[in-house]
Amino acid sequence: MAKAPASTLDNVIALAKKRGFVFPAGEIYGGTRSAWDYGPLGVELKENIKQQWWRTFVRSRADMVGLDSSIILPKRVWEASGHVATFTDPLVECKQCHNRFREDHLIEAFEEKKGRAPEGGLAEVPCPNCGTRGEYTDPQQFSGLVKTFLGPVDSEAGLHFLRPETAQGIFVNFLNVVTASRMKPPFGIGQIGKAFRNEITPGNFIFRTREFEQMEIEYFTHPSEAGTHFDEWVEACWSWFVDLGVNPDNMRRFDVPDGERAHYSDATIDIEYRFGFQGSEWGELMGIANRTDFDLGSHTEASGTKMQYFDQASNERYTPYVIEPSFGLTRSMMAFLVDAYAEDEAPNAKGGVDKRTVLKLDPRLAPVKAAVLPLSKSEDLVPRAEQLAAQLRGRWNVDMDVSQAIGRRYRRQDEIGTPFCITVDFETSEDQAVTVRERDTMAQERVALDQVEGYLAERLRGA
Amino acid sequence: MAKAPASTLDNVIALAKKRGFVFPAGEIYGGTRSAWDYGPLGVELKENIKQQWWRTFVRSRADMVGLDSSIILPKRVWEASGHVATFTDPLVECKQCHNRFREDHLIEAFEEKKGRAPEGGLAEVPCPNCGTRGEYTDPQQFSGLVKTFLGPVDSEAGLHFLRPETAQGIFVNFLNVVTASRMKPPFGIGQIGKAFRNEITPGNFIFRTREFEQMEIEYFTHPSEAGTHFDEWVEACWSWFVDLGVNPDNMRRFDVPDGERAHYSDATIDIEYRFGFQGSEWGELMGIANRTDFDLGSHTEASGTKMQYFDQASNERYTPYVIEPSFGLTRSMMAFLVDAYAEDEAPNAKGGVDKRTVLKLDPRLAPVKAAVLPLSKSEDLVPRAEQLAAQLRGRWNVDMDVSQAIGRRYRRQDEIGTPFCITVDFETSEDQAVTVRERDTMAQERVALDQVEGYLAERLRGA
Repeated sequence: MAKAPASTLDNVIALAKKRGFVFPAGEIYGGTRSAWDYGPLGVELKENIKQQWWRTFVRSRADMVGLDSSIILPKRVWEASGHVATFTDPLVECKQCHNRFREDHLIEAFEEKKGRAPEGGLAEVPCPNCGTRGEYTDPQQFSGLVKTFLGPVDSEAGLHFLRPETAQGIFVNFLNVVTASRMKPPFGIGQIGKAFRNEITPGNFIFRTREFEQMEIEYFTHPSEAGTHFDEWVEACWSWFVDLGVNPDNMRRFDVPDGERAHYSDATIDIEYRFGFQGSEWGELMGIANRTDFDLGSHTEASGTKMQYFDQASNERYTPYVIEPSFGLTRSMMAFLVDAYAEDEAPNAKGGVDKRTVLKLDPRLAPVKAAVLPLSKSEDLVPRAEQLAAQLRGRWNVDMDVSQAIGRRYRRQDEIGTPFCITVDFETSEDQAVTVRERDTMAQERVALDQVEGYLAERLRGA
Repeated sequence: MAKAPASTLDNVIALAKKRGFVFPAGEIYGGTRSAWDYGPLGVELKENIKQQWWRTFVRSRADMVGLDSSIILPKRVWEASGHVATFTDPLVECKQCHNRFREDHLIEAFEEKKGRAPEGGLAEVPCPNCGTRGEYTDPQQFSGLVKTFLGPVDSEAGLHFLRPETAQGIFVNFLNVVTASRMKPPFGIGQIGKAFRNEITPGNFIFRTREFEQMEIEYFTHPSEAGTHFDEWVEACWSWFVDLGVNPDNMRRFDVPDGERAHYSDATIDIEYRFGFQGSEWGELMGIANRTDFDLGSHTEASGTKMQYFDQASNERYTPYVIEPSFGLTRSMMAFLVDAYAEDEAPNAKGGVDKRTVLKLDPRLAPVKAAVLPLSKSEDLVPRAEQLAAQLRGRWNVDMDVSQAIGRRYRRQDEIGTPFCITVDFETSEDQAVTVRERDTMAQERVALDQVEGYLAERLRGA
């Protein structure tokens, strides 16, 4: 049987590992599926995504402010939020090795392998960990919260949870922000940070991990205006991805039906991206939820602190409704990578064409903004190139690459999405100019050395 | 007895809480001393510090790249790093309430209260938690690591630790970065992120917390050059604080003597800042350590992966030495705030002077870069001011404030360190210009509306 051609997703994963966007966490100790590490290119790409998000949704809006709350919060917060009670999965446990599984996942895996349902139910299904057949407990509820103990005593008193969503850190600070920043509904609080969930089956590269990063907004509004703001946020979120270059044909909305939404949500629209996973090719990129007054109400009840707003103009006191656009940061990164991945052809030195891989990332997101390439390793070109690179590094992340033929160096930069390659050549000392090559069109232009920074600044606006 | 005048530190803490730089985490549930939340102004200040650090030490240097590794790592990493064995404190436990304390802290607290040493040693000292006198266990070693369990089974197999330093995530990726980014020693990897330590006595505001943020560099060098790079890094770190406005008279170096250094360090210089704590007024801001080949050697031994570098030019294979500049992010923020805090006088409307509080933060760090202040709430001025604010928000974090007299609004902006206040007044519609006031000199200048962005851009360079 012929090997199936690699999918775009496979290619992106291979590229991401090879070029140092993403490494498996703890790889030298056999790795862990819980998390990934972001290498030199990955951290720049991730930071650029965060920066664009913060600019668009926090800094440029008069109705938004930012927050950075702690990852670990005491148990009481998570009891009030409903997570201790409802953030659970029904799992069966193998009586031999004590590993836990979702029953439906076990059945599905069996069906995929055998092409039929297991006739005796779980009795026929071997444990994926130890191979023992059919020795499972009845399903029980297990918490997806990641727990720890803080303080001088290792007991229930010190029980804390790592947040499964950044949102609760915003809710518990609602009154602090209203008082200190004098914000009035409708207004929102944005936050970027890590969250942790003890996922039973992490997988699909950086799509589902136990440690991950979110970009969340909690937008506080009068209950009567919640529906309007919900619709506005769905549009604003969709547009953010499209503005940063994601092809809208690879996006779709999913209106999450009753019974499938999180415990706090009255309405949820997921924005999904066509990642190209095996089986179901679509995956959730983010969700916009109408959390109503569930969270502020719950915290009011649990803490005794009234999480309400008093509107002096209308003389009305009310608990605001909350519209929550919640973005997966690492999922967004994965979507930007998959969407930018392309293979096309570039002219080579022999007058023919070479295949090339190119990441057509929006220049604002590209991890390296420009590469300075001295045409040879000569003593004339290299110091000149170093000087230019040093100047440009004052503003952007800039590579310098001196090894191998210029064509190969172009290929390496195309592959990581560098928008501009700047060649310092043998004429540079005469005309005080360099050749700037644009990534997508491969068009080349001669630019005076003292104009290069301005030339890039114009084309990298907003980066 | 007269109340002692508030110290600068007290004033800064009060200001930080009032204006929303910092809130106690989980405040509505009685708070926790483990962590703090960063409000709208705090998150902007903190992000500005990170950005300046990243630009100076990572992006602008050809010999540095960045990384963002996971917070949670399996036990084996922390066994290899020596943290499981040595990251401990000797604690006594109260036999009544099971709270744990450091013996020397109990003795010190007794001495501070009574003005003399406890004659019978601990026998005379009451438990700070439950009051029981002198019923303590003998000192035992307790781990400062924060543990958790990941995966489908809640047992030793799933035991992980939250990193007590970001450094180990860099060490375990040493070979990945060398391969993917083709870096050669001397080169460094920079990382910013959260770390967790189960401190027995958190305190001094954001100075010592269980959840905190670090900015770390691991700089890999040939062993013979380690000393030189160590000295260079001490200078580079010192200069970074001074360049961003910290008065060098409030900084000092402390050469940590043998026997007091961390288990991995062959030489450590701490940079301390005069925070003005009660008792000892100096506190550690950061440290530069020579970690030798301790970490790469330990991981080589524990993982079986050779963490070495092969230098083709000299045909030499060696384990690099590591120089580690490790910054406390939140401690840096606290130092910038304390150092910027000033009280002086400003002219008032009656021809006299008012006291004012002003944060003389470097404009690159200031959380709000400019405030747009319409002189009155008139229908002529407010839309014009809103338009200007919206334009400037495309580039910077900009406030707009319409309430109360202009003098009070200046005071509010001075207090949070806003470098420029822009007043839209009744002449603006005639001369198409606004008055720009500089924070420190309080000098005012008339600037044409269409020049304001350029005027600020020139003065906020590098922000």
